[in-house]
Amino acid sequence: MSFTPLLQRLLTALCCLPGVGRKTAQRMALHLLEKDRDGGQTLVQALSDALDGIGLCEQCRMFAEDSTCPICAGSRRNRSILCVVETPADVIAVEDSASYSGVYFVLLGRLSPLDGIGPEELGIETLERRLSSGEIKELILATSATVEGEATASFLAGLAGNHNVKVTRIAHGVPVGGELEYVDSGTLSRAIGSRTLFDS
Amino acid sequence: MSFTPLLQRLLTALCCLPGVGRKTAQRMALHLLEKDRDGGQTLVQALSDALDGIGLCEQCRMFAEDSTCPICAGSRRNRSILCVVETPADVIAVEDSASYSGVYFVLLGRLSPLDGIGPEELGIETLERRLSSGEIKELILATSATVEGEATASFLAGLAGNHNVKVTRIAHGVPVGGELEYVDSGTLSRAIGSRTLFDS
Repeated sequence: MSFTPLLQRLLTALCCLPGVGRKTAQRMALHLLEKDRDGGQTLVQALSDALDGIGLCEQCRMFAEDSTCPICAGSRRNRSILCVVETPADVIAVEDSASYSGVYFVLLGRLSPLDGIGPEELGIETLERRLSSGEIKELILATSATVEGEATASFLAGLAGNHNVKVTRIAHGVPVGGELEYVDSGTLSRAIGSRTLFDS
Repeated sequence: MSFTPLLQRLLTALCCLPGVGRKTAQRMALHLLEKDRDGGQTLVQALSDALDGIGLCEQCRMFAEDSTCPICAGSRRNRSILCVVETPADVIAVEDSASYSGVYFVLLGRLSPLDGIGPEELGIETLERRLSSGEIKELILATSATVEGEATASFLAGLAGNHNVKVTRIAHGVPVGGELEYVDSGTLSRAIGSRTLFDS
């Protein structure tokens, strides 16, 4: 059926959410209008405030409500280790693993010349300023294990070499809890190639 | 990790959408903030306008931007047949089937004394006014085939009886394209009980 103009506009707008298609948008719109108008108003306000109030941290390009994010502003972080990731979601994932106490740098993308994404778009200038400050002793490259992620890692390794900073890459191999049978061959060949001395 | 206050509020607000849990809300929020701030602004505006501008049709309680909905205002609908459904989504489903040219009445719920939903909440007064106007010749009960839906249908049938309106119920049985093997026994027993003369 043809929807009324306002409803049609709402459906189109909801489709900009990831994973939301036509049918899901309809279910969301009808739910909000029929059963949860207060929730809708709360969402309008929360989204509007978030879009206005959340910017990027000056130091690491993570989402921040002030000029620096809580991680960069934190007093208990080790500022001599810098972990480079592609997205804010990666920072959240690493933080959730509770295995890292250094600071971050978020590229907000990865090198992709075909899409017009070069070093400027990734804030490399800011990263270089931090590397040249002498505060950073180790740069951990945690970009994804894709072709573009690896290219980005190589580029960053070259950059860090100019500043005499130790460069490491996170390990790639068989996931913990994974059975060999179900691991893809690319991961498996990498796991064998990067084998380490057994630590008993 | 602990999110900043604005982001936390946005995550909580997104969780009011049906089918959206913690993880999906996070993915949506990061997507909007990182890659589609324009889409976010559009959503804020569209949702806000929809909540303000969409009300209920005076005649059928379907969503409407004016006092009557496009269906009730339409000149080509058969006003002597009234189909009673539970939700606006049901109207959309029937309209999409392109098998009905009458008008509707939306209950916005079903009788459920335990949840405090009685005839007043379902707009029965409005429905009764329409039944007593003499314009309606047939009332089609298209409430769902659940216990509460059936109870609601019985109640409405009694109501229509008082006004000498013919009452029909949509057929329940084996879905078109369905194989008997996979049909649940309740549906199958209903399909056998409601068998009709074979029309060759």
